[in-house]
Amino acid sequence: MVRFVDVGNINRWAADTGVERILTDMVEYLERDFRRWPTFDKAPRVASHSPLGVIELMPTSDGVTYGFKYVNGHPSNPSRGLQTVTAFGVLADVQSGYPTFWSEMTVLTAFRTAATSAMVARALARPDAHTMAMIGTGTQSEFQALAFRGLLGINRLRVWDTDPDAIAKFVRNLAPLGFEIVVATGATDAVTGADIITTCTADKANATVLTDAMVTPGVHINAIGGDCPGKTELDADILHRADVFVEFTAQTRIEGEIQQMHPDFPVTEIWQVLLGEAAGRTSAQQITVFDSVGFAIEDFSALRFLQDAVDRTPFYTDIDLVADPDDPKDLFGLVTAGAPVLV
Amino acid sequence: MVRFVDVGNINRWAADTGVERILTDMVEYLERDFRRWPTFDKAPRVASHSPLGVIELMPTSDGVTYGFKYVNGHPSNPSRGLQTVTAFGVLADVQSGYPTFWSEMTVLTAFRTAATSAMVARALARPDAHTMAMIGTGTQSEFQALAFRGLLGINRLRVWDTDPDAIAKFVRNLAPLGFEIVVATGATDAVTGADIITTCTADKANATVLTDAMVTPGVHINAIGGDCPGKTELDADILHRADVFVEFTAQTRIEGEIQQMHPDFPVTEIWQVLLGEAAGRTSAQQITVFDSVGFAIEDFSALRFLQDAVDRTPFYTDIDLVADPDDPKDLFGLVTAGAPVLV
Repeated sequence: MVRFVDVGNINRWAADTGVERILTDMVEYLERDFRRWPTFDKAPRVASHSPLGVIELMPTSDGVTYGFKYVNGHPSNPSRGLQTVTAFGVLADVQSGYPTFWSEMTVLTAFRTAATSAMVARALARPDAHTMAMIGTGTQSEFQALAFRGLLGINRLRVWDTDPDAIAKFVRNLAPLGFEIVVATGATDAVTGADIITTCTADKANATVLTDAMVTPGVHINAIGGDCPGKTELDADILHRADVFVEFTAQTRIEGEIQQMHPDFPVTEIWQVLLGEAAGRTSAQQITVFDSVGFAIEDFSALRFLQDAVDRTPFYTDIDLVADPDDPKDLFGLVTAGAPVLV
Repeated sequence: MVRFVDVGNINRWAADTGVERILTDMVEYLERDFRRWPTFDKAPRVASHSPLGVIELMPTSDGVTYGFKYVNGHPSNPSRGLQTVTAFGVLADVQSGYPTFWSEMTVLTAFRTAATSAMVARALARPDAHTMAMIGTGTQSEFQALAFRGLLGINRLRVWDTDPDAIAKFVRNLAPLGFEIVVATGATDAVTGADIITTCTADKANATVLTDAMVTPGVHINAIGGDCPGKTELDADILHRADVFVEFTAQTRIEGEIQQMHPDFPVTEIWQVLLGEAAGRTSAQQITVFDSVGFAIEDFSALRFLQDAVDRTPFYTDIDLVADPDDPKDLFGLVTAGAPVLV
């Protein structure tokens, strides 16, 4: 039997545990896996592009457990009442090849993206950071805010979105949770005085959500939305002034902000910073950019965290996914066991 | 909601419909998709190799529907009471990126492999073929036999396997269904007088299941077992004497019998034969080889066939795989809807 966490169960688990605590606890799994980064099989994700979006498969393995995520990205989906990003994922046993765990990942991806951002910001933002600007208050935004509060204690948010309904939704969801929220009059207003800037917009375009003039010394930029070819958020001039940190260089050069830069543009992989093998922030004036695109290992960590978290809870069901005849060479016998007469 | 066919339901469907009829009907879907081969996205599968086996993802898309299969291949699994190959697969809507259909594919892969073999043999074997040798009577063997009977009317089987229990199982399963089965004394005996030779063995090695001397003019060889790097079944001399037909050249050069040959070794893609764009069998003396490795489009066809076949039957269930908030930007509201207090 394979354990399956459907939408209802992940939501019941989240409500039972609390989102902020989930995000904080998940960082432990993420950081442990980032610190053993070289042990994983790594490859750029396998993308199938179409005029309206992309469907991707993101596999990885640590030699003991294999995991992959199916994820789509369709920026026009909300206009048709659908999610921009939906996902599901699977874990399997490398030794037998059998799948063992299967989960919805629309929600889980939102968790892992926010947890990864906060983990990286804890390593790169100024230790005295207390205000975060958030440009884009869509699906991912509340999770980002909760992860940054849980891990860095950030409680002051300056938010902006081109969609006033999205801002209203953000305020409605987070104001009751004790955040100090300023609704800005525009992106430039939002970033004024911010120590951390999170950009998380959905347009499939080379947009300029942040211009060079908006970025002051000492800021950490958490750039989430530039995550597929032809989809960026930052003015290239920012990248020239900043130190840029990535998950997996080969994939980020295809999908991240640095797709705008020369292939030799220097970047640092974040696992090296977490291991102490490369410098992170070295001065209070330095501008740091996390050029986040999302990598398979993060989904692997998130799935393993969820697998452990729902163990011995009612938040999963068993499903019969793998045909398992008594004689492994007699699949035919299993298939036809219920047939009175085979014609 | 996503429709899900688990092991119990696919077996009940197979028992209800009959395996031979399923295999014959599935060929219509396969042939229709092979005939529009150029319209599909095609890439070699994404493999994760380990000492004991391989886990693969096999995606494809026709621009309207996207599909992928997860499949493992672990030759030592039967010694631990497990299946060599297990699989599951998913269909999704390209326009929205949402998954729509999800099925076990351990059984379905056995169906599609057999149906593909028979479809190809109908195009390449001598029209007067009536006897098939089968070397390897493992998981796949009964399905091959039923597909060849359903599509080509082959009723005489000469079988051999190094595992006597596997032979006994084969005879036990198929003798009651009206086949004329000769248990051979060895591989050479099995192929004597056969018009078609099916090789389907599981060793992850460069084995020589068929030597050159065993292959007489006019034979069609249905080579199933050579399907990953380092795993072949045929003496290379056979390939020099034969005309070799493949599914997708780029993948077969990596995984098929022709991994033994120079990268320029000439092959014909089977879709061209089915479309009449390339010659198939041109004489009664010709030796034809179907160097089968299994390609993503076959799984796509099989999943679409199953999706249609179980529509308006009790042989599927609905599962809640995609989080679907009323406001697509308010995933957070959905996740926390059940939480009385969020800490």
